[in-house]
Amino acid sequence: MRLTDFSTGIEVIDRDECMQLLRDGSIGRVAVIDGGHPLILPVNYVVHEDLIVFRTGGGTKYGSAVRGGAVAFEIDEFHLDTHEAWSVVVSGRLEEVTSTDRVAELAMTGLEPWSVATTDHWVVVHPERVTGRRIPSSDR
Amino acid sequence: MRLTDFSTGIEVIDRDECMQLLRDGSIGRVAVIDGGHPLILPVNYVVHEDLIVFRTGGGTKYGSAVRGGAVAFEIDEFHLDTHEAWSVVVSGRLEEVTSTDRVAELAMTGLEPWSVATTDHWVVVHPERVTGRRIPSSDR
Repeated sequence: MRLTDFSTGIEVIDRDECMQLLRDGSIGRVAVIDGGHPLILPVNYVVHEDLIVFRTGGGTKYGSAVRGGAVAFEIDEFHLDTHEAWSVVVSGRLEEVTSTDRVAELAMTGLEPWSVATTDHWVVVHPERVTGRRIPSSDR
Repeated sequence: MRLTDFSTGIEVIDRDECMQLLRDGSIGRVAVIDGGHPLILPVNYVVHEDLIVFRTGGGTKYGSAVRGGAVAFEIDEFHLDTHEAWSVVVSGRLEEVTSTDRVAELAMTGLEPWSVATTDHWVVVHPERVTGRRIPSSDR
């Protein structure tokens, strides 16, 4: 279903399509609150059973996970030539996965970190609010 | 200057190169804290006198600007084939520009919103901390 705000031309992407875009993607950005300041960190991820899964070292993302922190997650795509763009934004809660059974299950997704930095923690985002919007091509 | 963490292969991008990457870019993501939750919003932007400039409507980004809120700003680039990736993350403070002289100065940058959504507020990010890192191509 497509909803368009005709005053702005911006299309609202419904939750099903947002989840499909998330499943199709592999790089997103995580925002957490770190000492009262927002922080953005890019991650590579997979979607497993509607959870956003990534691996991380012992830094901020991990700290936020351990604290069950509020998190935002974003993916987007944009075309500089046509100014077509879309984004999906997830609000949710971070959880570190420590159960060996669940880690083994997540490892089956094949998620591999892009760098060899220590990424021995598995973290999932539980999506609560999922919204998306699209700016159609200006060629239309 | 390139610094490489040889244990991880991750290169640290120095502030000068980060600022150049910011000047070369046009799409980034703003993270603000909204009601205790982090929120990410993609924006198109320009850099003017080392400030990150974007336009916005009356929503969350605007509210945070008016409150002089803490903000994070991120740009990145990644290549799915080689797993080469870099990102620049800025921590700073949002300011709404209301002086007509300064708005006129910012308007000279040619910054145009991608959608016709109401974007009649001019907002700048004052960068405080600027950091970047690069994962080199796995082909190397």
